[in-house]
Amino acid sequence: MSNEHIVKSFAQELQRLSNLITQMGGVAEAQVEAAVQALVRRDTAIAAQVIQSDLRIDTYEREIDNETLRLLALRQPMASDLREIVSALKIASDIERIGDYAANIAKRSLALAQLPAVRPAGAIPRMGRLVQEIMKEVLDAFIERDVDKAVAARRRDEELDDLYTSLFREVLTYMMEDPRNITPCTHLLFIAKNLERIGDHATNIAETIHFLVIGHPLTTERPKGDESSFTVVTPQPELQG
Amino acid sequence: MSNEHIVKSFAQELQRLSNLITQMGGVAEAQVEAAVQALVRRDTAIAAQVIQSDLRIDTYEREIDNETLRLLALRQPMASDLREIVSALKIASDIERIGDYAANIAKRSLALAQLPAVRPAGAIPRMGRLVQEIMKEVLDAFIERDVDKAVAARRRDEELDDLYTSLFREVLTYMMEDPRNITPCTHLLFIAKNLERIGDHATNIAETIHFLVIGHPLTTERPKGDESSFTVVTPQPELQG
Repeated sequence: MSNEHIVKSFAQELQRLSNLITQMGGVAEAQVEAAVQALVRRDTAIAAQVIQSDLRIDTYEREIDNETLRLLALRQPMASDLREIVSALKIASDIERIGDYAANIAKRSLALAQLPAVRPAGAIPRMGRLVQEIMKEVLDAFIERDVDKAVAARRRDEELDDLYTSLFREVLTYMMEDPRNITPCTHLLFIAKNLERIGDHATNIAETIHFLVIGHPLTTERPKGDESSFTVVTPQPELQG
Repeated sequence: MSNEHIVKSFAQELQRLSNLITQMGGVAEAQVEAAVQALVRRDTAIAAQVIQSDLRIDTYEREIDNETLRLLALRQPMASDLREIVSALKIASDIERIGDYAANIAKRSLALAQLPAVRPAGAIPRMGRLVQEIMKEVLDAFIERDVDKAVAARRRDEELDDLYTSLFREVLTYMMEDPRNITPCTHLLFIAKNLERIGDHATNIAETIHFLVIGHPLTTERPKGDESSFTVVTPQPELQG
């Protein structure tokens, strides 16, 4: 009887840990959305809010870290319970990084709000929407412990990489047209890179969900990632000095 | 007697885990050094080598992940042993990211080798040396379980952020001088950002060492990070279109 009581309360503790991850993921999702809004609307109040709220995400990570350590020490879990706890630790670390990237987008939107608007900014909301969809799918997959959904979300990361790589070329061309575009376009490039990195962390979470549910890491080849590192764009002849 | 035997062999297993981290860190340190060399010497063979060797680092991470799970399940460790294992998991994840950044620097050095050399590239080796020093100090701190050394290394991350922020301004100005500088300078900016991020991961490792040795997270304020996200550089009047 007393043993059953302990078992039940451990299940509750694991559920609580899982809820913390879900909440933390929800906050990060909202932060990404608000950061993109701050950029699109040139709204410095939203940007300041996002930068400040990053502390909330850090607090979640600390709480989850402490809770996992406590459960590992007190419960000495095995098999799937152990995977639950180790996965929580990994996923919290990925969500914390997503929060950092959202805060960085908000910081750069403050710099952009001081500068004339530039055309390629239009592609950022498209990347932002895709990132949010991927994050939502991955968090749903976590709540439902749905490996197929996690794998499907991970596959969409490739679309994001393609969007990023084409934006990279477009922004470079635009910088070459007028030196006044260079500072805003540089911030746009880093914002796009941040969104691409958020997609990578969502991919990590999808892989952790696979490990959590199936018990071993995902062995299929990871989507190739962005190709922009190899990109060379040269100015049109009439622009050369 | 039999009990003592188990205790001793657990200590050996923890030592082996710790050695794996040290080896993995050594490989990552060598990768960062080689990536900066590939860039400076425009040596595509070294760059290709670095890109390929990133798999070795990923393999280390998988081995460390498996080993931590095995030890958690079989040994059900408490207190400092538990911290050893959880720390190994966290540090391996930071070193894996450092490896990814080194590989990205190598990829971009391949793009740069096709383009005319640009002046601000000179500041990259300085950032590279500083990053390597910080990594070496952090890895030594890990081997010696020396918290003071870890905290000192973490403080040097601020120098790195300052170097990055001033390079950011310089590169933007250089891009404004000639559109042919834009593509190489964009890759340089991302390379510098990668080095700055490697410093952040070394900082994370320093914080994990603090937790590992002292038993609780570092509570002092984290160094402020790079300020370039807020940077606005405008072209000289004679350059404006």
